[in-house]
Amino acid sequence: MTNSVDAERTQTKPGKRERLVEAAVRVFYEQGIEKTTIADIARVAEVPVGNVYYYFKTKDQLIEAAIGAHARSLDQIVAELERLDDPRERLKSLIQGWVDGRELAVRFGCPFGSLTAELTKRADPLDGHAAEVMRALVDWAERQFAIMGRSDARELAVALIASYQGISLLTNAFRDPGLMAAEGDRLARWIDSL
Amino acid sequence: MTNSVDAERTQTKPGKRERLVEAAVRVFYEQGIEKTTIADIARVAEVPVGNVYYYFKTKDQLIEAAIGAHARSLDQIVAELERLDDPRERLKSLIQGWVDGRELAVRFGCPFGSLTAELTKRADPLDGHAAEVMRALVDWAERQFAIMGRSDARELAVALIASYQGISLLTNAFRDPGLMAAEGDRLARWIDSL
Repeated sequence: MTNSVDAERTQTKPGKRERLVEAAVRVFYEQGIEKTTIADIARVAEVPVGNVYYYFKTKDQLIEAAIGAHARSLDQIVAELERLDDPRERLKSLIQGWVDGRELAVRFGCPFGSLTAELTKRADPLDGHAAEVMRALVDWAERQFAIMGRSDARELAVALIASYQGISLLTNAFRDPGLMAAEGDRLARWIDSL
Repeated sequence: MTNSVDAERTQTKPGKRERLVEAAVRVFYEQGIEKTTIADIARVAEVPVGNVYYYFKTKDQLIEAAIGAHARSLDQIVAELERLDDPRERLKSLIQGWVDGRELAVRFGCPFGSLTAELTKRADPLDGHAAEVMRALVDWAERQFAIMGRSDARELAVALIASYQGISLLTNAFRDPGLMAAEGDRLARWIDSL
């Protein structure tokens, strides 16, 4: 990846591989996995479609790369949240992030949930990889509830992430950002009440 | 269901149109809308693919018919629930129905939620039709909370349906029916606490 052509290009815009992964995340989110072609992703990435095969041989490899990009995004979000000392504040900050992203949820739902939902219809290893990323988020939320001294930390973590996934779907279906905002307030009050 | 016409009908098999709609509901649920072809539906319905066009000219017409079938299923579920006098019992019976269906949720998620999630990626009237069915369920739950004297009935109804949609996704992603059972218990306790 560090030949002179790519090195030159990185001074202006990201490398082709990086652009392809970013485009895959975006196009899978906006139009779903099944409807997306490699050509769609190449166009958004501004990479000639004939060059894509140098980086990704199949659409499944692009899906795998998109799941990896979501995993890295989650790591970054968690690293930000961990700067807060109080587990309640961390959880409420996570919720605030969901509320802040409500306009995108109105258009396309949860970026990762909608990907996971599509992949679970397939009988191949990719749905397991998506589930691992979802599990990492549930595990992190469980640790916060455990620090708060809750013996039912796992159940609460599952309920919290389920509420977000579900309200993303309803916000999307009803095209109503107010639903996400109201549910965010309700979840924050719930966390305070525990 | 035991009048003479119905009794007679069960002796033969349902008409082709009815079989096609049933097959569409099932195949869309099991493999998603985008991946499904008219030929897939014809095969499951045991209708020659050349005959399908007599009933449905396009896949979109089959999607529309599947949404209609979901709307009728919801009407039947609601009619059953309305036999119970107490709104709390009605809501808890709805939740019990979700828990009873958890093995299917493990395999494919919520039958209607996964359809809605796929349709919202499209910019056409079908996603609005799916949303209407989802709205009918939220409206019904809202009426139950209102009968219980809750001024925040709408918010509670949205939260309840969102919890179900979300736990369906997690049950599906983690292939774990226990998640739906535990969340069902939690939601029933929540309804009792209101």
